[in-house]
Amino acid sequence: MLAAAREAFAERGFDGASIRLIATAAGVDPALVHHYFGSKDKLFLAAIEAPADPEELLPELLAGGPADLGARVVRLLLQVWDGPGRAAGLALVRSAVTNEWTARLLREFLVSQVLGRVVGTLGLPRAEGEARGSLVASQLIGVVMARYVLRVEPLASASAEELVAAVGPTIQRYLTGDVDLPGVVAPTT
Amino acid sequence: MLAAAREAFAERGFDGASIRLIATAAGVDPALVHHYFGSKDKLFLAAIEAPADPEELLPELLAGGPADLGARVVRLLLQVWDGPGRAAGLALVRSAVTNEWTARLLREFLVSQVLGRVVGTLGLPRAEGEARGSLVASQLIGVVMARYVLRVEPLASASAEELVAAVGPTIQRYLTGDVDLPGVVAPTT
Repeated sequence: MLAAAREAFAERGFDGASIRLIATAAGVDPALVHHYFGSKDKLFLAAIEAPADPEELLPELLAGGPADLGARVVRLLLQVWDGPGRAAGLALVRSAVTNEWTARLLREFLVSQVLGRVVGTLGLPRAEGEARGSLVASQLIGVVMARYVLRVEPLASASAEELVAAVGPTIQRYLTGDVDLPGVVAPTT
Repeated sequence: MLAAAREAFAERGFDGASIRLIATAAGVDPALVHHYFGSKDKLFLAAIEAPADPEELLPELLAGGPADLGARVVRLLLQVWDGPGRAAGLALVRSAVTNEWTARLLREFLVSQVLGRVVGTLGLPRAEGEARGSLVASQLIGVVMARYVLRVEPLASASAEELVAAVGPTIQRYLTGDVDLPGVVAPTT
């Protein structure tokens, strides 16, 4: 079931793969998939062995409104990665960098489970939300790479709050600030 | 010779590994290493199979002064990665993510060959330069990961100048802006 799910999510993306399609590919009844995993989100998290469940972690973060959102996003990222999620996170990144299919799965995870939810609260037009989300992704992935993979100092040894203070404003600018967005036509002035 | 160089640079860092030490480990005369590679920088680039030679590319970028430096750094990164350097760059990133020793080499490359040179032109105290450099590294590595490895849209398909416009200000802020820097005690006000 998980193998069929990985293949479907990688090939069709999160939105394009249905539980029915995955069940058919696995040769089981869709009700069984629902029974074991509950929802497509949960099936997806299990399929990619996600380091954390954004559906559990994000609501509190998002309830705080947009004003300090950048800082809260960085804080949550570090909470997962400085905590028990690191091993699974590193395994996912390693696999994504060496395997095109896992790269697609990790991208779908970021876009559909994390960025879509965070940017979704801002009520932006779709193209603008995607552009802001992809910029947020670039800084967050970069923090993970610099801190946990390459261990560039002093970023690698910095406290979580030091990084929140340094990187939070970047995320905030990408989310709500004045940015020339790729793929988005600027309003005529 | 290259194997001995990789080992020495990974174990001792760029500054700690000398040509004499590498030559001894390889069982050859230091003069031979100089003859083949010319300098420790060039030997290092050959050892890690670097996608580009920062010593060739950076002087022009750095000659432009600090005002627009962030945009120029992003432009140069994309020039290398959207051009012939991408295959070697991807190979290096893949290897760094799966192999602790290559991770150390890539970190040394970034710190000693790229960030040290860029931040070095700003005349900052050492700790501040390293802190700013590590933040710059986090955003640049993240752009590489989001654009070339995970291919998060619209960042993956954006033109180089669109990314310069969106990400350049982040790099500029990390280089010269008002940032709470990790590991750097803020001046008393």
